[in-house]
Amino acid sequence: MTEKSATRPVFFVSDRTGITAENLGHALLTQFSAMKFEHHSLPFINSEEKARLAAGSINQSAQNSAYRPLVFSTLIDDGYRAIIAGTDAHIIDFFDAFIKPLEAELNIQSSHAAGLSHGINNEHVYMCRMDAVNFSLRTDDGVSTREYKDADVILVGVSRSGKTPTCLYLAMQFGLRAANYPLTESDMANALLPKALAPYRHKLFGLLINAERLHTIREMRKHNSGYASMAQCQRETRMIRSVFDLEKVPYIDSSHISVEEIATSIIQLMKIHRPPIY
Amino acid sequence: MTEKSATRPVFFVSDRTGITAENLGHALLTQFSAMKFEHHSLPFINSEEKARLAAGSINQSAQNSAYRPLVFSTLIDDGYRAIIAGTDAHIIDFFDAFIKPLEAELNIQSSHAAGLSHGINNEHVYMCRMDAVNFSLRTDDGVSTREYKDADVILVGVSRSGKTPTCLYLAMQFGLRAANYPLTESDMANALLPKALAPYRHKLFGLLINAERLHTIREMRKHNSGYASMAQCQRETRMIRSVFDLEKVPYIDSSHISVEEIATSIIQLMKIHRPPIY
Repeated sequence: MTEKSATRPVFFVSDRTGITAENLGHALLTQFSAMKFEHHSLPFINSEEKARLAAGSINQSAQNSAYRPLVFSTLIDDGYRAIIAGTDAHIIDFFDAFIKPLEAELNIQSSHAAGLSHGINNEHVYMCRMDAVNFSLRTDDGVSTREYKDADVILVGVSRSGKTPTCLYLAMQFGLRAANYPLTESDMANALLPKALAPYRHKLFGLLINAERLHTIREMRKHNSGYASMAQCQRETRMIRSVFDLEKVPYIDSSHISVEEIATSIIQLMKIHRPPIY
Repeated sequence: MTEKSATRPVFFVSDRTGITAENLGHALLTQFSAMKFEHHSLPFINSEEKARLAAGSINQSAQNSAYRPLVFSTLIDDGYRAIIAGTDAHIIDFFDAFIKPLEAELNIQSSHAAGLSHGINNEHVYMCRMDAVNFSLRTDDGVSTREYKDADVILVGVSRSGKTPTCLYLAMQFGLRAANYPLTESDMANALLPKALAPYRHKLFGLLINAERLHTIREMRKHNSGYASMAQCQRETRMIRSVFDLEKVPYIDSSHISVEEIATSIIQLMKIHRPPIY
């Protein structure tokens, strides 16, 4: 007799990328942090054969584990959903739960069309997102300030305060044109903003970071350098706070929040109009 | 008497970024493509006062529209949820629908802790994602091939076939180290891969794109250039297919699928082990 696994298997089943199913499942599973889960992604389940293979994996996993698997599904096709529903698992079926009440409320039948989420639904919106990614790459790290006239927002902060990933996220997720400009110690010597930024003051948003966190991040990049030293990090973080305060640049502390949270906060605080995610 | 709006208001209400709520709502609303919706994001609803303000906006919108608003909520706090539940709207409450059945199945109480999704839950995982973003920036466009030993995947394709956004997405969403190498016409002249790529053959993945699509994208970048001409696009797309076939590089056609779909397909086809999204 073989020993059974003590972690609970979790499957994310989708007809397309499975990203919605995984985010959805994640938001729920984080509420049960005492438990151990073992994650399996089953994207692109878009044929009866693939649905049967997926069901086989789920049932196999049910046999190998001490716990019944959880299945988070965003499948739309009734036939494939029925195949997954027949497995020995606890199924959390996203469409089953919400589509019927929505049909009743909206007084219209749903189209039951797969893969409309995370696909290219709207060519124009999609091209805007890709264009925004290219914009953020061209204007990264203070390069190409002449494009600032086209920016939705310009992030300012010391080196390694999270500007670049935040710009890329704003572009990729929201289609926003986000540039960034790093403030060096010499930039901040007179506690004023660099002249190149003056015409775009209304687009500026500052990222603060505390000295300890900055030190940790810079150490990973350049170990034992003056750049990464605690003294340097303390000096720069003190200086930048003065610049933001004196120049009245809105800012948040990015030390302990994720790129998603920083990006969402910027949109909210700067009152940036953005299109829906899709 | 003022005229009421003929679009249906939709609210995404969350105690944190609202990204899960919006993705969730999006996946459902795409099933009702005949209807017009007007989107409102209400992130960071993390106090009673903010919940009351949110409820006020929803009720105001209900008065101004010919249709009852839809509310997609990922709120966790029972008090705030009750405030939103009291509005004149059709509420789709994510936690309400799934958390009780999950508690029963898992035989454990949920923690009712807000903001665990899209936050920094796991410092190590988060740093890996940021590290992967920096890796993809350093190795973008064939730069720094000496770092290829650390890559999870190396994308190859002609200029503007979608390599860079895909690499950034693989990094940001999945924490994967994705490099990319553009193949120019001269690279492909002998129908072989460049020598720099030879040691990493097992990590290569190709992006195809059709000539029409490539022409459109390049035209936006360099209008009326030889680079963007249909003849050049046809030549390069024909050549790269030969290289992939002769060199047995796995590939997909990225012409009509989104970055999310390309990224998910690569992970699946290359059997790349990736950690869960969170």
